[in-house]
Amino acid sequence: MKKIEKTIQKIEPLDVRVMEKTQDRLNNLTKPQGSLGKLEELAKQICGITGKENPQLRNKVIFTLASDHGVTDEAVSVYPKEVTAQMVYNFLSGGAGINVLANHVGAKVVVVDIGVCSDFKPDPRLIIKKINYGTKNMAKGPAMTRDEAVKSICTGIEIFENEFSAEGGSAVGGNCGIDIVGTGEMGIGNTTVSSAITACFTGKPIKDVTGRGTGLDAQGLKNKISVIKKALSVNKPDPADAIDVLSKVGGFEIGGLTGIILAAASRKTPVIIDGFISGAAALIAFQLEPKVKNYMIASHCSVEKGHKVILEYIGLEPLLDLDLRLGEGTGAALGIGLAEASIKILTQMATFRNAKVSERKK
Amino acid sequence: MKKIEKTIQKIEPLDVRVMEKTQDRLNNLTKPQGSLGKLEELAKQICGITGKENPQLRNKVIFTLASDHGVTDEAVSVYPKEVTAQMVYNFLSGGAGINVLANHVGAKVVVVDIGVCSDFKPDPRLIIKKINYGTKNMAKGPAMTRDEAVKSICTGIEIFENEFSAEGGSAVGGNCGIDIVGTGEMGIGNTTVSSAITACFTGKPIKDVTGRGTGLDAQGLKNKISVIKKALSVNKPDPADAIDVLSKVGGFEIGGLTGIILAAASRKTPVIIDGFISGAAALIAFQLEPKVKNYMIASHCSVEKGHKVILEYIGLEPLLDLDLRLGEGTGAALGIGLAEASIKILTQMATFRNAKVSERKK
Repeated sequence: MKKIEKTIQKIEPLDVRVMEKTQDRLNNLTKPQGSLGKLEELAKQICGITGKENPQLRNKVIFTLASDHGVTDEAVSVYPKEVTAQMVYNFLSGGAGINVLANHVGAKVVVVDIGVCSDFKPDPRLIIKKINYGTKNMAKGPAMTRDEAVKSICTGIEIFENEFSAEGGSAVGGNCGIDIVGTGEMGIGNTTVSSAITACFTGKPIKDVTGRGTGLDAQGLKNKISVIKKALSVNKPDPADAIDVLSKVGGFEIGGLTGIILAAASRKTPVIIDGFISGAAALIAFQLEPKVKNYMIASHCSVEKGHKVILEYIGLEPLLDLDLRLGEGTGAALGIGLAEASIKILTQMATFRNAKVSERKK
Repeated sequence: MKKIEKTIQKIEPLDVRVMEKTQDRLNNLTKPQGSLGKLEELAKQICGITGKENPQLRNKVIFTLASDHGVTDEAVSVYPKEVTAQMVYNFLSGGAGINVLANHVGAKVVVVDIGVCSDFKPDPRLIIKKINYGTKNMAKGPAMTRDEAVKSICTGIEIFENEFSAEGGSAVGGNCGIDIVGTGEMGIGNTTVSSAITACFTGKPIKDVTGRGTGLDAQGLKNKISVIKKALSVNKPDPADAIDVLSKVGGFEIGGLTGIILAAASRKTPVIIDGFISGAAALIAFQLEPKVKNYMIASHCSVEKGHKVILEYIGLEPLLDLDLRLGEGTGAALGIGLAEASIKILTQMATFRNAKVSERKK
């Protein structure tokens, strides 16, 4: 718990002075003021986060955390649980959606087993930080112990810190391995868990935050809702205690992403939130420390209806609305592309004076 | 006119067989069916357009056409008319928004003077195809002659064909210089013209299709609306005759883009439509030949409210909604990035069988 507190204590407000300077510069670029809309706001936010007037987004990292969920015993997914491990192999061999889209935007994918049910052969591309072999079935009791919940967040912090301290970064001294981070996950059953977390924190009816996941039919959705209802009534998670919620109806990958989000904010690194499951992690991070919100950038709004509820609750406006519902960090990858575009606008466009273009009439 | 008719005659329906095969392949990739939403639809559309099961989007070209407008005499813009020419120099030296965003997605910007009021020094990077030195003031009479309207469309077709036949392309034989095209423009006063075109074709009240352009205040907007009203009542353009509308209340860059859109469709090339002014060109192309719609991809929805009216009229759903209102092709550049992402998903992801991932339960 100390590691979490120490990380949270390091989270500062955004650098308002740099943001004002950024706004001035944006206003002097050869375009009508504000005409690049959300790209301009994004550039300003990234400058405020990093405290840099000319941030470079060279080292782009997407963390894709995989974990299993005991609640799959309740038939909440159309895919068998084994798919979590199979997809980890797919991530490692580069054939998954996240590999393709991360590659498209020049981002590295860091794959982590934080709680998959099976063991993997040692692979230098896979970080193994297993908290346990999947969570327990939350419909019957807590998904994990409180210790495991704390440990999953701390593990996320460690994973971020390890990558952040890796060599080859763009910071002065070259010791910063991350300029921008994206969140991603894989875990059969994790939309069920995310809906439970969302209902618990936002107080919305379960049916308003629960969707069809990877493709449930009407009957399956009905069952999923009743399983979540059972999980909440059996466990009675306390929304005022985020760790309690995570332990009772959460998942290891969600705890891990919570840690990554907090660590990124503590290191003045913009963090691009992917879809619904990443949103649930963002929600926990926000409950632990509301200041973390300023470091978050919502890449997109998922088809899973609970995601919109989360974004509105935290107060984030998504960049994209492409009916995505894959997870893995795929939306975050596209968001990283837009973030990079926004910084290029800021740092590469000519000013009215440089380009000898007349300014607007007074 | 013959060139336009010949181009239109070459526009075929999309290749349904290839689209079905694409759908099958998308369904077999290692992700829940349809979970990449609009990216999947986009990939399918591009396959249908190109007729290729494995299209490559290597040669990406954005055409940025510049032209002046006589209606600027009516104080419809907060920027002086000279900015059109000044921005052309900015495009050539690489300092404009379109340069930065085109570079971000690996697209080439082809800059064309199709009707700027002043002459440019010869520059190999600038295509000079001037129809005239700006249009006439549409508030007092037709913006251009019918011949000029036809010529502007034909010029767009020629510009596309020249680039299309350029060497170094990816088609068999290497003679295709364009795999995907984006539309862009620059012309002080051209939101006024685009609102007039939109009102004329869609029948919507002028105030519902007219925005603040580069930054008019309430008084300026009121004046802009009354200028458009005057232009429509003085000229009485016939919405059943698209060339009549273009000549009376259009612009050379809009005619040129209409030609580029038609030519792209005739060459089975996907065309990414930028914002409001490109939308007005899309509207004219659509009036000339509704089949062209299938070849269009709407990159974004502009802040200019007439743009949404255009998209709904044609039946296009925009990919992005980032509050952009710059034009130049900036939104199209971002759209090209998404189109490329969609094709990479299709062509680079593993299938369930290849990756040994279990499919959904039956």
